[in-house]
Amino acid sequence: MTQHIPTRLYLSEEEQPKSWFNLRAFMKNKPAPLLHPGTLQPATAADLAPVFCTECVKQELDDSTPLIPIPDGILEFYRAYRPAPLIRAYFLERALGTPAEIYYKHEGTNTSGSHKLNSAAAQAFYAKADGLTSLSTETGAGQWGSAMAMACAFFGLDLTVYMVRVSAEQKPYRKALIETYGAQLISSPSNTTDSGRKILADNPNTSGSLGCAISEAIEKAVKTPKCRYVLGSVLNHVLLHQSIIGQECKAAFDKYGIKPDVIIGSAGGGSNLGGLIAPFMSEKLQGKNDIQFIAVEPASCPSFTRGKFAYDFGDTAQTTPLIKMYSLGSGFIPSANHAGGLRYHGMNSTLSQLYHDKFIEARAVTQTAVFDSAVKFAKIEGILPAPESSHAIKVAIDEALECKRTGEKKVILFGLTGTGYFDMSAYSAYNNNTMSDHIPTDEELEMGFATLPKC
Amino acid sequence: MTQHIPTRLYLSEEEQPKSWFNLRAFMKNKPAPLLHPGTLQPATAADLAPVFCTECVKQELDDSTPLIPIPDGILEFYRAYRPAPLIRAYFLERALGTPAEIYYKHEGTNTSGSHKLNSAAAQAFYAKADGLTSLSTETGAGQWGSAMAMACAFFGLDLTVYMVRVSAEQKPYRKALIETYGAQLISSPSNTTDSGRKILADNPNTSGSLGCAISEAIEKAVKTPKCRYVLGSVLNHVLLHQSIIGQECKAAFDKYGIKPDVIIGSAGGGSNLGGLIAPFMSEKLQGKNDIQFIAVEPASCPSFTRGKFAYDFGDTAQTTPLIKMYSLGSGFIPSANHAGGLRYHGMNSTLSQLYHDKFIEARAVTQTAVFDSAVKFAKIEGILPAPESSHAIKVAIDEALECKRTGEKKVILFGLTGTGYFDMSAYSAYNNNTMSDHIPTDEELEMGFATLPKC
Repeated sequence: MTQHIPTRLYLSEEEQPKSWFNLRAFMKNKPAPLLHPGTLQPATAADLAPVFCTECVKQELDDSTPLIPIPDGILEFYRAYRPAPLIRAYFLERALGTPAEIYYKHEGTNTSGSHKLNSAAAQAFYAKADGLTSLSTETGAGQWGSAMAMACAFFGLDLTVYMVRVSAEQKPYRKALIETYGAQLISSPSNTTDSGRKILADNPNTSGSLGCAISEAIEKAVKTPKCRYVLGSVLNHVLLHQSIIGQECKAAFDKYGIKPDVIIGSAGGGSNLGGLIAPFMSEKLQGKNDIQFIAVEPASCPSFTRGKFAYDFGDTAQTTPLIKMYSLGSGFIPSANHAGGLRYHGMNSTLSQLYHDKFIEARAVTQTAVFDSAVKFAKIEGILPAPESSHAIKVAIDEALECKRTGEKKVILFGLTGTGYFDMSAYSAYNNNTMSDHIPTDEELEMGFATLPKC
Repeated sequence: MTQHIPTRLYLSEEEQPKSWFNLRAFMKNKPAPLLHPGTLQPATAADLAPVFCTECVKQELDDSTPLIPIPDGILEFYRAYRPAPLIRAYFLERALGTPAEIYYKHEGTNTSGSHKLNSAAAQAFYAKADGLTSLSTETGAGQWGSAMAMACAFFGLDLTVYMVRVSAEQKPYRKALIETYGAQLISSPSNTTDSGRKILADNPNTSGSLGCAISEAIEKAVKTPKCRYVLGSVLNHVLLHQSIIGQECKAAFDKYGIKPDVIIGSAGGGSNLGGLIAPFMSEKLQGKNDIQFIAVEPASCPSFTRGKFAYDFGDTAQTTPLIKMYSLGSGFIPSANHAGGLRYHGMNSTLSQLYHDKFIEARAVTQTAVFDSAVKFAKIEGILPAPESSHAIKVAIDEALECKRTGEKKVILFGLTGTGYFDMSAYSAYNNNTMSDHIPTDEELEMGFATLPKC
């Protein structure tokens, strides 16, 4: 007989992974390199150095080292909230009446409420090691800004967070959280930067955008001595830090002799999905397993399912290096969606290559269906999920119900990236039936594609 | 050498306590019985039956059974979020430079955000076992209402929550959380009860009070078929359920050979403190340890440090049985304090007896000092605490700094009852320097004492 699986599978501190897992090292078709937007040549470390910390640049460009040791200072920080629980969804399985086994990795047990803290801690640590005194970043939904504020408070760095104006107004609790951790929060666009002043001059009543906030944060970083910019997703060094998620899942599964058949992750910029699948995908690339990998994205912002695989800018202001990725075009404007963390026009380059090579499949789901699943999950499993995470929940439930129909006893793993405690206005909208399920028309997509660079 | 203590001490499912620990069974001086307010005779099970579930009444009146088994249905629910972590505060110790060892029990890892869920689960389970179909309750700060909403969603009961009007308006996220879990939330006073209508007729613009919300919830329970009332603190059966906290601490300490010298808990109605200390206090009563127990209360509502030990009503409407307790009088009006869960005029009868017999000491702390400690703790340990919990943090830090002065290597345990994620308006007030530190004058206390019943 197999041993009893507890509801929550914890690793001990000794079992905590000590290295980051670099999935790119195992890929035959590597992700295409970043290109310098001026020369269209592969970006060098020197190109990236004015914006990012030294070690992050090194990690961004490294597609051959399989394991990169995690410094002790970061491991120590991780012990404050990791290893994160891997949970067997006994209650959900029973409620669905499925023969499937469902597991989820709960990354929302820290105050910032999501997996973002894994990379925030690493980036803050490396910034301190570089002798920097401050960092700048932007935040939309607020998870990344909260995570960076926590990490900077811990490692002793000043932080400026440019928060999209509409988010700062709609999410006063996120604003208070970021300020409580000592960061300076600036509603974007602001009159503290040239780019902000220009946008305000053209349109004083703008509600702001992530693209604008990124531009302000980068400007702040390059104009301030001993300051750099940090980004919470999309880039490969961020996925590298998030590989702690998948490695902990794999260690717990191995400990109990469990083999997953399906792994499901929500996908915005891709950092959660990339981190979750990393060690499992490397085995698949080596022919050692046949796991089905499913990326779930909002139907309102369908970069995988309806995007183009092309070089594009990472920001709407078109100032970043060019990234080869599935993209809707940096000028694409997604319709209103409460999963702010998934409203991004592109997708990480590693995941884009894997999707292009058919190692990952993708599904797009509508907002109301996602919240139906979120509320069901909250009542049954007792954890109120983040809107972003609920995309994975929706498809996990779909898969479990398909097992009920076919009788298959699949083992399903999904990533619960975070909790929705700071997103209650989204749940209010759901409770009050005021959610939009708009899916972009072909014409709207064409307007986004028209902003793709010609190269 | 002693073994290495991990940052987070988890128990396995097998090590989870299987019984509740009834501290009253170990007391020579038992807490005085509840009195029927009409006859002034000890309240009987028949007196309490119209208001409370059968098993809760039995537990309330039982001061002799040391261990009361936890039903399987409740143990199963507990596995969704328990055993809760006992955390070694390595970061805080280092930041303070103290030779003391500091531990805290983190009860905020569930969605409702506090220890309240421990009793909510028990009371909902017993209600279902009684064949009831619905429950009613009140909530002020919102932790108890959220916990009951989660428990009722899980066990399949309807729930009506009367939320103090000012709280419902100031805490829209709590309201949304309670409604997402399917409970009916009514802003109190309301026109759904006689007592609510009477108060509204007298004072249509009232901001409500806990006393009024309790009256409405009890009226709803006694007038609705198959409905009972549930209360989140003060009563002895609630402390019994919360003994899971102290038992888990003791099991983890025993596992690692750790002996606490000081145990510190925030005290409002007393359920957290009573649950935290239960197994340790029983040993002290038997002469097996010499632990120092410290109750921490807000200086704005100082029931232990400035109250009278007397029979008093549990609610401001003076409808409950009489409870022998330290009280400021049911008519006492505490000044504004963001720790809503500690704004209660009285204190559980068991804790009151122990305090009277000098087994517990008490300290009153002012609000700004509490938030100073809360923000320090958040930045150092990474967990943003509830305002209520932060009272214990403040005194734990004081004790650790005293050890630094004397060189004593004390082992300090405090209860982190919950997180402050739904209390960000309080942190905003702190960040913006708009907090009041009013301490009641002797005249204000006398006005409260004047409302104590003559018996």
